[in-house]
Amino acid sequence: MARNIQSLERAAAMLRLLAGGERRLGLSDIASSLGLAKGTAHGILRTLQQEGFVEQDDASGRYQLGAELLRLGTTYLDVHELRARALVWTDDLARSSGESVYLGVLHQQGVLIVHHVFRPDDSRQVLEIGAMQPLHSTALGKVLSAYDPVAHSEAIEADRKPFTDRTVCELEDFEHILDISRARGYAADVEETWEGVASVAAPIHDRRRMPVGAVGITGAVERLCRDGELQPELIAAVRDCARAVSRDLGAGRF
Amino acid sequence: MARNIQSLERAAAMLRLLAGGERRLGLSDIASSLGLAKGTAHGILRTLQQEGFVEQDDASGRYQLGAELLRLGTTYLDVHELRARALVWTDDLARSSGESVYLGVLHQQGVLIVHHVFRPDDSRQVLEIGAMQPLHSTALGKVLSAYDPVAHSEAIEADRKPFTDRTVCELEDFEHILDISRARGYAADVEETWEGVASVAAPIHDRRRMPVGAVGITGAVERLCRDGELQPELIAAVRDCARAVSRDLGAGRF
Repeated sequence: MARNIQSLERAAAMLRLLAGGERRLGLSDIASSLGLAKGTAHGILRTLQQEGFVEQDDASGRYQLGAELLRLGTTYLDVHELRARALVWTDDLARSSGESVYLGVLHQQGVLIVHHVFRPDDSRQVLEIGAMQPLHSTALGKVLSAYDPVAHSEAIEADRKPFTDRTVCELEDFEHILDISRARGYAADVEETWEGVASVAAPIHDRRRMPVGAVGITGAVERLCRDGELQPELIAAVRDCARAVSRDLGAGRF
Repeated sequence: MARNIQSLERAAAMLRLLAGGERRLGLSDIASSLGLAKGTAHGILRTLQQEGFVEQDDASGRYQLGAELLRLGTTYLDVHELRARALVWTDDLARSSGESVYLGVLHQQGVLIVHHVFRPDDSRQVLEIGAMQPLHSTALGKVLSAYDPVAHSEAIEADRKPFTDRTVCELEDFEHILDISRARGYAADVEETWEGVASVAAPIHDRRRMPVGAVGITGAVERLCRDGELQPELIAAVRDCARAVSRDLGAGRF
């Protein structure tokens, strides 16, 4: 079996480093964070800069992520079959539920948001396409963990951080939640990730009946819940949407 | 001077290849397009796959861009100072003009859209953040070409394709348009890129008075123009927005 290419792995590690925490780093910080000699780090950074993957601030000399990543990331979305199939259905779900809609896929140790439809009112909202959500506390993450074995492993091995008093962190409790989610066919998050925010999500399957993503709505707990329970009409709307997208991907009806 | 790292340059070339044209390619196509031995191409692809930069379709074995690019591209946006400063002003411009607003920066041989505010109506619109626009025919591109010497060189050297009957392709005519744009302080595109679509854009300067981007509105020629001319109120609104963002970036008032 061929070896992986070390300079590429190091370049990827640099991009991940610049994507987290500080986000603008000098050569010395980058080299020492990755345990590289400064000359080695500089050679990689200079090539990354030439290719547009990193940019260097003129004034401070610090490095940050480059514009080419945005262009390539957008192209990734353009060829995303699940997203393309889901566009119309998620628009409909936002309209019928009156809430914002998220489409997520497993990526690394979390849920990558590949589509986001704004809540259909005039409020100012921040687009979250490309953002990551935790697997263990969000409705999208629980759906993926319940249905996708790879996501399940990631969630089990992850450090399941408490975000609120209601986050389920203990392994046994978490597995129980996943059992319930599988039995019901959807997962919920009532203030387990963000105070005051609830979400509900359902799995999307492809033509081979493989779980390929999850779709859900997210909004104020006062709107999504009644007497502490998620409103059944909203759950039904989310599940209808997930089934429609699955059908569009070629999943069988039965 | 240190050499650039060949495997990184090759990896970047693969990502560019997968971002254009076909977008799903087999190993042989990739190797032959880049003039590489199959073994060499496979080693790079496998590392890129492991890092999440490319994905391989199970059924066809073909490669396509990977999810990590979306995550990193979104992080690029998060640290984009110009974009952060422009968010509120571009929202205001969309509301006051009733049109969609684009914020663009020079990237490679074109304009990279780093922010897009939808036209404030209920119509279905496609988000264009991360998309590229040509330098020679769009209002954003002409503003950058008129004010940024690097953009100017790119536009001069580019193959200035005609998109409509009105696209200005000849070098002398194009330079004349740029002179007019500089004299006026804004640039226009009336059906030079898309039939039926007009746009107007103005330059954004930073604290060192360097042109760092352009902001503009785009919409149906029937709404943006009156008697074949762009409406002065819309031009004024775009220029006000560009000045406000420039001020926020620290540009002087005089």
